[in-house]
Amino acid sequence: MSDVIDVADPADPRLDDFRDLNSIDRRPDLPTGKGLVIAEGVLVVQRMLASRFVPRAMMGTDRRLTELRDDLSSAAAPYYRVTADVMAEVVGFHLNRGVLAAASRPGELTVAEVIDNARTVAVLEGVNDHENLGSIFRNAAGLGVDAVVFGTGCADPLYRRAVRVSMGHALLVPYAWAQSWPADLDLLRDRGFRLLAMTPAATSRTLADAMHDVADDPVAFLVGAEGAGLTERTMRAADVRVRIPMSRGTDSLNVATAAALAFYERVRFVE
Amino acid sequence: MSDVIDVADPADPRLDDFRDLNSIDRRPDLPTGKGLVIAEGVLVVQRMLASRFVPRAMMGTDRRLTELRDDLSSAAAPYYRVTADVMAEVVGFHLNRGVLAAASRPGELTVAEVIDNARTVAVLEGVNDHENLGSIFRNAAGLGVDAVVFGTGCADPLYRRAVRVSMGHALLVPYAWAQSWPADLDLLRDRGFRLLAMTPAATSRTLADAMHDVADDPVAFLVGAEGAGLTERTMRAADVRVRIPMSRGTDSLNVATAAALAFYERVRFVE
Repeated sequence: MSDVIDVADPADPRLDDFRDLNSIDRRPDLPTGKGLVIAEGVLVVQRMLASRFVPRAMMGTDRRLTELRDDLSSAAAPYYRVTADVMAEVVGFHLNRGVLAAASRPGELTVAEVIDNARTVAVLEGVNDHENLGSIFRNAAGLGVDAVVFGTGCADPLYRRAVRVSMGHALLVPYAWAQSWPADLDLLRDRGFRLLAMTPAATSRTLADAMHDVADDPVAFLVGAEGAGLTERTMRAADVRVRIPMSRGTDSLNVATAAALAFYERVRFVE
Repeated sequence: MSDVIDVADPADPRLDDFRDLNSIDRRPDLPTGKGLVIAEGVLVVQRMLASRFVPRAMMGTDRRLTELRDDLSSAAAPYYRVTADVMAEVVGFHLNRGVLAAASRPGELTVAEVIDNARTVAVLEGVNDHENLGSIFRNAAGLGVDAVVFGTGCADPLYRRAVRVSMGHALLVPYAWAQSWPADLDLLRDRGFRLLAMTPAATSRTLADAMHDVADDPVAFLVGAEGAGLTERTMRAADVRVRIPMSRGTDSLNVATAAALAFYERVRFVE
């Protein structure tokens, strides 16, 4: 059970993990960044406690402590109990979620590890927007995706905004960074994955038809950045090009929405 | 064809429609608000020009003027040609989209008008987030939804952020505000619409099954706010309760994403 420690002084160094919240989740190689992973709010803190990201400290109000009591029974990190005012002074702005947890970054998983036993994987290239990234993790968790693989140009899924938008699922859905791109797609292909490149191109197969074709195989959905889409090189490395049928006069959907539709269509075949 | 008028002085009153951009799209009943509808960027300005929202002024760089030349051939509003620096000074911040158009608000459409001839309608209750609202319009446009109806508690779809996130589709997909809620659902029912309430409740029908049942009928998807969902009263007014099958351990999807999945499933049956 977490020790509950009352702290009244916002300058108390034990709260340093939460000080100036807008900079502490930056990567450790950046000047102001500690590279901590931050969970905000009861639900996301609960998900962090269930993840491989082990909190080293928590700070929150008494009310949130009550809500988290059961989840903290097997937690080792201290819970610094503070008022909302102290909290605001420490983090640098008013934060109405009322509780934060901070974890150090554990070692990264490998692509081989996260795709092992996976049936459906999302592979992202150039998805550099934290909100889209967070949404993709939320959609992945809700719609049966087993793992996420990052090619080049993707944003950090552990950035605070991404974790928050993902509702904590960025901490739970296993992900790994490709070491060589797009060559690492061969790791997927060697394990029998069919590589489906998402594109608005009218000449590609519809999502429903493509899913039907690969119903018995493990599937990797390759998804590119909003606007730019997948690079031509990555597109060529895929087995099939897949599109979502769109109404006339429209161009494309948001990248996280397009991914959600792909995941949803896939779920029909892997119950 | 729009008159092109060079303006070098940021204080020129002809640019007033774009001054202090963070307040001018507020509703006219607010102290700082003119209630203008603002389109940002070439794509959204093009969509405004194709919509019932007739621009009364445009302001942009020479480069954007070149890109818009064809679209402006039948436009009556003047194009105030400015430098990026003048533009930044007028709007109050750096705006990298390079062109803006401003339209007065035309009269609102009625529910009866927008559902006439519609086969698929989205009905929103309590969707008070501009980004979600914009995303719903983008998804509606891309995935074959004919109109949007607003119940109580929804945000203004003409707010600048909503228009931007919608990629301009908030100006093109017809919408109307219910005059009496949820009583106005009867307008839909009287025209043969089946009313499907979206909910995470495990006892409801799956989206795919529900869509199959109503394939031949006009359909209205009732969607509630993120978190709270539809009110119980609105839920009772629906014909069917519908859920998206979710993975274990997850609770719900973002409201715009859930709507996109519903629209996508519907498209199968209304080609």
